[in-house]
Amino acid sequence: MLIKVLGSAAGGGFPQWNCNGRMSARVRRGEAGVSARTQSSLAVSSNGRDWVLLNASPDLRQQINETSQLWPDAQGGLRNSPIKAVVLTNGDVDHVCGLINLREGQAFSLYASDRVLGTVNANSVFNVLNPEKVDRIELAMDTPTALRGGGSDIGITIEAFDVPGKVALYLEDASKGQSFGTEKGDTIGLKVTDTANGKSFYYIPGCADVDEPLAERIRGADLVMFDGTLYTDDEMIAQGLSHKSGQRMGHISMSGDAGSVAALKDLGVARKIYVHINNSNPALDDNSPERKAVEAAGWEVSYDGMEVEL
Amino acid sequence: MLIKVLGSAAGGGFPQWNCNGRMSARVRRGEAGVSARTQSSLAVSSNGRDWVLLNASPDLRQQINETSQLWPDAQGGLRNSPIKAVVLTNGDVDHVCGLINLREGQAFSLYASDRVLGTVNANSVFNVLNPEKVDRIELAMDTPTALRGGGSDIGITIEAFDVPGKVALYLEDASKGQSFGTEKGDTIGLKVTDTANGKSFYYIPGCADVDEPLAERIRGADLVMFDGTLYTDDEMIAQGLSHKSGQRMGHISMSGDAGSVAALKDLGVARKIYVHINNSNPALDDNSPERKAVEAAGWEVSYDGMEVEL
Repeated sequence: MLIKVLGSAAGGGFPQWNCNGRMSARVRRGEAGVSARTQSSLAVSSNGRDWVLLNASPDLRQQINETSQLWPDAQGGLRNSPIKAVVLTNGDVDHVCGLINLREGQAFSLYASDRVLGTVNANSVFNVLNPEKVDRIELAMDTPTALRGGGSDIGITIEAFDVPGKVALYLEDASKGQSFGTEKGDTIGLKVTDTANGKSFYYIPGCADVDEPLAERIRGADLVMFDGTLYTDDEMIAQGLSHKSGQRMGHISMSGDAGSVAALKDLGVARKIYVHINNSNPALDDNSPERKAVEAAGWEVSYDGMEVEL
Repeated sequence: MLIKVLGSAAGGGFPQWNCNGRMSARVRRGEAGVSARTQSSLAVSSNGRDWVLLNASPDLRQQINETSQLWPDAQGGLRNSPIKAVVLTNGDVDHVCGLINLREGQAFSLYASDRVLGTVNANSVFNVLNPEKVDRIELAMDTPTALRGGGSDIGITIEAFDVPGKVALYLEDASKGQSFGTEKGDTIGLKVTDTANGKSFYYIPGCADVDEPLAERIRGADLVMFDGTLYTDDEMIAQGLSHKSGQRMGHISMSGDAGSVAALKDLGVARKIYVHINNSNPALDDNSPERKAVEAAGWEVSYDGMEVEL
C-alpha cells in the first residue's frame, strides 16, 4: 500500500491567504526551514493503479497536477482518472470543497458518514458531480467496507469510527451550547487496510481528545497519521491570530499533558506522523525546538508529496 | 487601472483533471506552445493597493500565492489582505467556489445578481465567510455601483448588465425545456470603471450570443475581455469529449458566422482579449492556425499572469 500526502496543512494552508503572522510571513519570504503546504488530503493505493482520496481539499486541482500518479492514463480513453473513490472524515471546507474539482462526468464513489453526506447533499454546488456517475455511499461506523469505484473493487478496505470532535465551523449552532450541535458522525477516523495483504494504518486528521476507546483502538498499530493542527492549545490566541483555543476548534494539541505526544507515548504505535498542521504551528519549522521535541518523541511531521509504503 | 488575469481557462482548467484529450495531454507532457492555465478570474485595482476579484475560481488559493500584489501587507497587521471586494458574473462552480478560500474572518464585500446571490445563500459551505464581516450585496442591473470593501471606497465602479446565457449546470431544471430554468441575472457582464479617471473596460466571461443590445453597449470600447470558451460550436463533440455544443453550454464560439470574431468585427473595440478558454480550444496552442486566425482578427488570447493597464 502506498500512501501519498497530497496536502499536509490544516484549513487555510501554509501560507494562509490573509495571514501576516510569523509563520505565514516566513514561508512567503521563502525562508529556509519552512516549506509551503497545501490543505489536508491523502491519496492511497494498494495496486498502484486505483487510488482513493482521503478528504478532498480546496487545493485538489493543484495537488493532482503535482502528483503524476493521479493523472489520467495517457494510453487510456479521452476521459479517465485513477481516482476511484473519495472518503470524507468531516464536513470542514478544507476536507470537502475539493469535491467540486472532480466534476466532468467521471465515475467514482463518495463515502462519508450520514452527517457529512447530509451536508454534501444539502449544498447544491456538489451537484456538479453527476449523480448518475458518482455514488454517494453512507459509511456505517465500526464496519469494514471494501471500497469500490468506477465499477470495481479497488483493493482497499476502510473502517470508520467516531472520534471526539466538533461539527464544521459553518454548521455550528450557537443555541446548542458548548457542543455547537455536534453529533456522532461529525468527525470520524479511518482504519485503512490493504485488502490483499491485510496491512493497515489509521488516519485521524481531526480529533479533540484521545479517549480510552480511541487509545485502545490504535494500540500497537503499524502507522497512525494524526491531527497535528496545533502545538499548544492557546497558540493562536498567543500569536494574536484568533480568540479560539484548539479545544474550541475541536483539535487536540501536540504538546502538554493532554496532548497527542503524551497520549500516544505508551501505545506501541510503530510509526506516528502528524498531518493537518495549522499555519500557526511552530513545528512546521524544520529547525524549531518544537519540531525537535516531537521528533525526539518519535513523531514525524508530514510534508506535501511525502510517500509512505506499508 | 491595472487588470491581472489570475486564471484564463474555463471550468476544469488546463489541463483538466480527468481529460486525456489532445490539448490536455499535450500540456501535461510539457509541450512547447501550450501553457497550463488555472480557472477563470481577474483581479483589478485602480490605486495599486485595493483589489477587486472578478469571479472567484476554485484555483484562487494557488492564484493568490502566485500573485504578490494579492499578498497581505508585510508591514500590516497580523491578518490583512488587499482583496477588498469580489464580484460574481454567474453561479458556475468555476466562478463561485473560490469564495471558500476567502475565509478566516477577513472583511470584504461580495457583489452578485439576486439570482447568483440566492445560490450562494442557499449553500451553507459559503457560511465560512463570516456574515458579520462579509457583506453580500445584490447588484442592481444597469446601475453604476461604486465598490466598497473593508469599510472604504476602493476606486472602482461597476455596472452590471444581463447577457444571453444559461443557468449554472448544477442548477439546471430539465423540466423547463430548452431554457433549463435560466432567468435574468443568471449570466451578467460588467462594465468596470476606474472611478478616478473614468477609463473603463467590459468583462464578459460567459455569453451565449452578441445580440443587438450587447453590441451597442460595447461599441467603441477601449477594451473588451470576452468569453473564449470554444473555437467552434461543436468542438467538444468532434473531439469526443462531450455530447454538448457550445450553445447548449451557454457559450458563443470564437469562429463562424455566429461567432465572437465576426460579432465584434465592426464594433470599433480598441482591444479585444479572450478569457475563460476551454481546454478543448485549439487557440490555446500559441502556434495553431486557430490562434493565428483570431490574432489576425485583432484578438489576443489571455494567459495566467497577463497584465493589462488602462
